[in-house]
Amino acid sequence: MANITIVGAGMMGSALAFPALENGHSVRLVGTPLDADVIEHCRLHGRHPKFDTAFPDGRISCHQVSDLALALKGADLVIGGVSSFGVDWFSQEVLPLLAEGTPVLTVTKGLMDMPDGTLKPYPFLWEEKLRQLGKYCPLNAVGGPCTSYELVSHDQTHVAFCGRDIQVLEKIKEWMQTPYYHVSLSTDVMGIESAVALKNGYALAVALTIGVNQRQFGEDSPLHFNSQAAVFGQSVVEMERLLKWLGAYSLHNLSVGIGDLYVTVYGGRTRQIGILLGKGLDIDEARRRLDGVTLESLVVAVRVARALRAAAQRGLVREEDYPLLLHADEILTEKVPVNIPWERFTFREEV
Amino acid sequence: MANITIVGAGMMGSALAFPALENGHSVRLVGTPLDADVIEHCRLHGRHPKFDTAFPDGRISCHQVSDLALALKGADLVIGGVSSFGVDWFSQEVLPLLAEGTPVLTVTKGLMDMPDGTLKPYPFLWEEKLRQLGKYCPLNAVGGPCTSYELVSHDQTHVAFCGRDIQVLEKIKEWMQTPYYHVSLSTDVMGIESAVALKNGYALAVALTIGVNQRQFGEDSPLHFNSQAAVFGQSVVEMERLLKWLGAYSLHNLSVGIGDLYVTVYGGRTRQIGILLGKGLDIDEARRRLDGVTLESLVVAVRVARALRAAAQRGLVREEDYPLLLHADEILTEKVPVNIPWERFTFREEV
Repeated sequence: MANITIVGAGMMGSALAFPALENGHSVRLVGTPLDADVIEHCRLHGRHPKFDTAFPDGRISCHQVSDLALALKGADLVIGGVSSFGVDWFSQEVLPLLAEGTPVLTVTKGLMDMPDGTLKPYPFLWEEKLRQLGKYCPLNAVGGPCTSYELVSHDQTHVAFCGRDIQVLEKIKEWMQTPYYHVSLSTDVMGIESAVALKNGYALAVALTIGVNQRQFGEDSPLHFNSQAAVFGQSVVEMERLLKWLGAYSLHNLSVGIGDLYVTVYGGRTRQIGILLGKGLDIDEARRRLDGVTLESLVVAVRVARALRAAAQRGLVREEDYPLLLHADEILTEKVPVNIPWERFTFREEV
Repeated sequence: MANITIVGAGMMGSALAFPALENGHSVRLVGTPLDADVIEHCRLHGRHPKFDTAFPDGRISCHQVSDLALALKGADLVIGGVSSFGVDWFSQEVLPLLAEGTPVLTVTKGLMDMPDGTLKPYPFLWEEKLRQLGKYCPLNAVGGPCTSYELVSHDQTHVAFCGRDIQVLEKIKEWMQTPYYHVSLSTDVMGIESAVALKNGYALAVALTIGVNQRQFGEDSPLHFNSQAAVFGQSVVEMERLLKWLGAYSLHNLSVGIGDLYVTVYGGRTRQIGILLGKGLDIDEARRRLDGVTLESLVVAVRVARALRAAAQRGLVREEDYPLLLHADEILTEKVPVNIPWERFTFREEV
């Protein structure tokens, strides 16, 4: 049995305590500086405040951030459970405390755009930090369609763990897999991480159509799957092109990204904000309506679009191949009204 | 303005009367021998019995099958609106009546499996019939995500017309496109027709998970998108492999098929029967529950699986690359209980 330390008491990180505990491991859940109330709740009630289900019986202990160093001590696996806004904090506060060789599995999805227009997944950024620290810890990440609350309720789930070392991945899979948590493995970190990050702009775009239709046909109008499906189909086209541009394409990577797109269309805040934008609110109004919530998925979408425009400037890609993503981006960054470019999705293929 | 004759008063064929009439064309809607009541209803009420909306003002006339020859006379375009069970009837009764050169656009989706295990789209079968008749009429088909009732309600829709002659396709597009009906064109008939036919087994498979979860977690349990997304992702993998096996792959073809899968998961009887199967009924019980309705989508799924097994016998494909389709098939043909092979969806990719 392993000692598994989860850093960050967000929903996804905390959800991974379930398969870990069910497999008999000892779990330490440590909050970030923003998680004080959550950790207090977990301690008092044995349950994460966002989940209906208590943590399964087993050896779980919950710790405030002040215990971080202690909680990391002797960990066989560290699960990074911070949001993309916690990536720097994780880099500065957690990486220096890791013992040499401790594997990390991060749930944080996203890409950072560099000044030169390239996109980097977070594990690559953290590897640089580790090199500066003169340390080696294998960095791995989870991609694929998985909402935390459905994992907690034992819905059948298929994700991909990616990392550079297949043997480390095998070990983490052995610790974490359950009869409902199915784990693929890939050493293509750029591929898996890109696929799941790229889906963000497209999940927003599919949700836009729901809002557009509510505005045009009334709130209670049926869901208009023709237009959702048209945007979904265009998303497949653009996501494959993006993956190829990034040198990150494989059929499995695409399928992980499309599966993740599918689940994201249905769950959570990206959908809610897409519907509000589709109904005619601008991004500031939509954010206010959702209590000013900061949406990491939108940040990632904007970063990808920015990198794409930079690449187009340099002649590496053609903007006209990505009408949907670039429209989503101009809605977010320039507050352009929603006007889905349907006709630009059409193709003419002669064989 | 063109004379457009629609043969078959099913929902999809009849829905195409809307863009045609809105574009100012004259439309004749002719029933098959099974459509007598529908045609009578259309005549009396100016509305298809399955639609809430009347046919738009314009020149539409509705005809019983006895008027078939008359209704085809002078047609600039014939729209084939029969189901896949009407394919032979269309071949025997309609093709001989077509004037030389009259273009046909068929909405019938499906593939026929030949005794040697190859799969053929309906337009290819009809071409052979036309050759026997010593006649040439360009045969075209519609693929892509489009439910009839959403087309009628002017939901934004993107479909693909396919046929061998791009100029004929351009002409049909000119007649049929509207500000809400967006039309791609492709001369890859095998590609488009295969993509939209292949999705049937996968739409059933996604729906299975809904039924499985209702059985396990209760009727009112949330929709469990993790497992839907896992099956959707696996569908992307298997559909691309099937398209490649059939020599029918392109990114656009895949996107048309995935869009069509998305819309089919949400609309209609394939979803309903998948849920019933997932809940533990066998196919006979599920059919009875749905009033003995015959499901053309299931017929197509079974044909594809049969062709695939034949190809595997000949060493052309590997059955283990298609665990989801083959499980859907054994549920349908051997009444094997639903037991989704989750672990067989996992992959191990080293780069």
